[in-house]
Amino acid sequence: MSKVRVIPLGGLDQIGMNITAFEYEDDIIVVDCGLAFPSDDMLGIDLVIPDVTYLEDNIEKVRGIFITHGHEDHIGALPYVIRKVNVPIFGTKLTMALINGKLEEQGMENIAKRKIVRYGQVVSVGKFKVEFIRTNHSIVDAAAFAITTPAGVIVHTGDFKVDYTPVFGDPINLSRFAELGSRGVLALLCDSTNAIREGFTMSESTVGRSFETIFAENANSRIIVATFASNVDRVQQIINTAVRFGRKVAVDGRSMIRILGTAEEVGYINMPEGVVVSLEELRNYPREKTVLITTGSQGESMASLSRIAASIHREVSIDPTDVIILSSTPIPGNEKAVSKVINDLSAQGAKVIFQDVHVSGHACQEEIKLIYSLVKPQYAIPLHGEYRHRQAQASIAADLGIARENIFLLEAGDVLELDEEGAAVVDKVPNGKVLVDGLGVGDVGNIVLRDRQLLARHGILIVVSVFEHGTNKLVSGPDVITRGFVYVRESEELMEEAREVAYNAISSAVAQGIMDWVKIKAAIKEELTEFLWKRMRRNPMVIPIIMEV
Amino acid sequence: MSKVRVIPLGGLDQIGMNITAFEYEDDIIVVDCGLAFPSDDMLGIDLVIPDVTYLEDNIEKVRGIFITHGHEDHIGALPYVIRKVNVPIFGTKLTMALINGKLEEQGMENIAKRKIVRYGQVVSVGKFKVEFIRTNHSIVDAAAFAITTPAGVIVHTGDFKVDYTPVFGDPINLSRFAELGSRGVLALLCDSTNAIREGFTMSESTVGRSFETIFAENANSRIIVATFASNVDRVQQIINTAVRFGRKVAVDGRSMIRILGTAEEVGYINMPEGVVVSLEELRNYPREKTVLITTGSQGESMASLSRIAASIHREVSIDPTDVIILSSTPIPGNEKAVSKVINDLSAQGAKVIFQDVHVSGHACQEEIKLIYSLVKPQYAIPLHGEYRHRQAQASIAADLGIARENIFLLEAGDVLELDEEGAAVVDKVPNGKVLVDGLGVGDVGNIVLRDRQLLARHGILIVVSVFEHGTNKLVSGPDVITRGFVYVRESEELMEEAREVAYNAISSAVAQGIMDWVKIKAAIKEELTEFLWKRMRRNPMVIPIIMEV
Repeated sequence: MSKVRVIPLGGLDQIGMNITAFEYEDDIIVVDCGLAFPSDDMLGIDLVIPDVTYLEDNIEKVRGIFITHGHEDHIGALPYVIRKVNVPIFGTKLTMALINGKLEEQGMENIAKRKIVRYGQVVSVGKFKVEFIRTNHSIVDAAAFAITTPAGVIVHTGDFKVDYTPVFGDPINLSRFAELGSRGVLALLCDSTNAIREGFTMSESTVGRSFETIFAENANSRIIVATFASNVDRVQQIINTAVRFGRKVAVDGRSMIRILGTAEEVGYINMPEGVVVSLEELRNYPREKTVLITTGSQGESMASLSRIAASIHREVSIDPTDVIILSSTPIPGNEKAVSKVINDLSAQGAKVIFQDVHVSGHACQEEIKLIYSLVKPQYAIPLHGEYRHRQAQASIAADLGIARENIFLLEAGDVLELDEEGAAVVDKVPNGKVLVDGLGVGDVGNIVLRDRQLLARHGILIVVSVFEHGTNKLVSGPDVITRGFVYVRESEELMEEAREVAYNAISSAVAQGIMDWVKIKAAIKEELTEFLWKRMRRNPMVIPIIMEV
Repeated sequence: MSKVRVIPLGGLDQIGMNITAFEYEDDIIVVDCGLAFPSDDMLGIDLVIPDVTYLEDNIEKVRGIFITHGHEDHIGALPYVIRKVNVPIFGTKLTMALINGKLEEQGMENIAKRKIVRYGQVVSVGKFKVEFIRTNHSIVDAAAFAITTPAGVIVHTGDFKVDYTPVFGDPINLSRFAELGSRGVLALLCDSTNAIREGFTMSESTVGRSFETIFAENANSRIIVATFASNVDRVQQIINTAVRFGRKVAVDGRSMIRILGTAEEVGYINMPEGVVVSLEELRNYPREKTVLITTGSQGESMASLSRIAASIHREVSIDPTDVIILSSTPIPGNEKAVSKVINDLSAQGAKVIFQDVHVSGHACQEEIKLIYSLVKPQYAIPLHGEYRHRQAQASIAADLGIARENIFLLEAGDVLELDEEGAAVVDKVPNGKVLVDGLGVGDVGNIVLRDRQLLARHGILIVVSVFEHGTNKLVSGPDVITRGFVYVRESEELMEEAREVAYNAISSAVAQGIMDWVKIKAAIKEELTEFLWKRMRRNPMVIPIIMEV
């Protein structure tokens, strides 16, 4: 009997870009296909997708992509990946509705086959059987997978938490995890996002109780709530609270409107008519009888709440009596942007509430212990999270009695081959980050990024000279043009000095009889770079250009 | 009798750049003179200092600069400001030692008069009397000021916390605050940094107990502790713990070595010989008998710990048995950099401890209430912090019974005129941020920054054409050169198309008999910008250059 191979292609050294391949003999299935948002040094980049060369090279083996839930870090790379690896996509109802919307946006609605799967259903593809198991997360319809292979059963939790009192639907199907565990599970791939946090993640319904209190205490204020567009349950709780307090609700923000529309289509949110009204209609009601639900809880500069805070929203402006609830926690990297929104709102006199109005969608340490204790895997493969998060899960697994040599902190591209007899990383496949910039996919790499970083720092200085063809006779220039270096109008002297440095570099080269443009350009660049550093302690990019006539 | 004027010139809409002027008739004193670190959109900027035009314009009135403590956000702008406003500087012993070091670095040791002041001492300048009062903070020798003017007494806390069990020296002089309060205080300017946090800030000595536990539990590991260079008490506690556990200590990181040297000179740290050794000597001892104290607790890319984590430190490399303590909390904006360091260290097998090993240096809500209750000011002027922090202090002041109209949330440049009869903002003076970039102070403004932001996003595309002088005959070009836009080697076709677009724009202008270079350049820029957006959805900066021969 063969071994099964687990090949993560992303999701291991950062938050986002989750994608893992499972291979057994001539069959491959893929779990999730997410994007990552660019890091600070990826200037101008819109989003980051995984390198799927391995799947392309083995396209005849790939049987399908199974999606755990509808967040961007699990579905966002699909439009790019299925252009190259066009295989069927499997997911639950809301997940698939969100994928459909995404593909339609890109005019790809007819490209990939898609199949909606119910909890409990098993999909057979090649030698794999994939069972969808109900979990809880910050988006409804999240699933874990039990992947049965001839070499054993692998459980993949997806992103999850244990919520005994979810707002919509049922709690996570712990019984099923227990059954699988009793029958024997080869490996567990488990969400590590909150593995450094002690205790249990609070139930989503606790946030509803906070809303209740805030609505009761602010009966004379308009209430604006910003939250994640995809957290349908959160929005449902805001609407429910509004109903109880006799308030009308409007929704603002493109992604919020889109996702709630999708959720309503599939029956996952109840937006009672007469309660949810348009933004225009909301104006007809007294402010204290209204609630506005918006995007922008992460301080995203173009999102609804940020525009309201910056007084550039066309239809909504802040009144000192307003109460604004930021129902989220800043994702690392967004702290300053969120602070700015809070400051802007506060400075207009509004009350901003940002504590105790959010719960995470990810399992903390006690929940991770619970899943391990039920599933009792032979091998532990912590997934989803930075190294320190996955390491924290590894410690938990070790504490629960899994032998250290059976715990694998993998890197992207690692090929982990395993069966009941043993497990080992046996190979490395191509992997990496593909940068998407506008319509370009993968055409921006390290060289372009390094140039952008250089340009960002101290701008550019261009030196143009015209030489007579076939001679080294300078017939025009050197002219010096700069952008992002100094304020030119107040730096005429410096510009003139720079021109002279360039002229002298050319003259000296010409005097030596040098006729090679490459050498003359190198001399100009070197002399000017040194001059500018000494004079200003700045390092702009210096671009010498020579034209021939 | 005249009113006294309070004129903050910074420190109100951000963390940092603390500076406030106090004016009474023909006398002005300044409290603090700090820098701010550049925000993310200030590309290439090294640091930010306040606009002190108002002080320059009134230089004959300015009697002195009083410094509360030696942190960069309170002393960092001194070398720039005293070049223009050369007045005596007053501060406590360590504060002045740090200022001396800063001025010496810039070859300015002979420029400004400086005077060391003891706690309890009163400095009279013009009609002002400034008393130095002991406080506690995350650097020793911090002072609050009681500023006596004919219009009343103003108390300025500086940055402070209430530490009943400080590591060095005495607790904050609460009795003196109480005496001042009993006699009557006109206004309180109080630190708002932690005003949104409930409760009390823990004592610095609690961190020592954490070190004790960690050292006891990790007897077989080398211990590396990263912390703020200026937190001398923190370093003292690490050294004390090392002594108790029989370990040798070395210190690494330029600013750490510099500040500890200064602290030792003035007798504020005890670095016993035979315990503190050089980095080279430390290698002679068994790892488990050593402690390394480093900079880099904020993930600063060139600091000691970051270099160790990235395996580019020349003398220190990580061993899987190492224990690393990050004795600090990430300053907003540094979260991702700190995570990266933790991940890099963890991935090398080291144990990283970053929880419960730090306390703040700023007063939380209960401490702020204590100071207000002792000082009993007529007017409250929350200082130091973003708007939301200062607003939180305003709420506290209101809760304690200060009338809303006596609480002032000022903006930089506001002139608040006050005496016992009343207070009002009566004027606005010049204010703002001056950007320091290399040797240039203030020469980088919005235009240069906007260009850097544009260049950072999608790079630059330069189009050079050569025309015959006095005609519109194109004799060379157009040539297209790009940087940071696309990977040119794989984009030859696009470059050729761009060249054609430029050529057609020129041809069409020439055909219309246009001989104005400005118009031809505008046509090239417009056509190319549109082409590149349609073709790539990117917006590089397009620079048309025309040379004449």
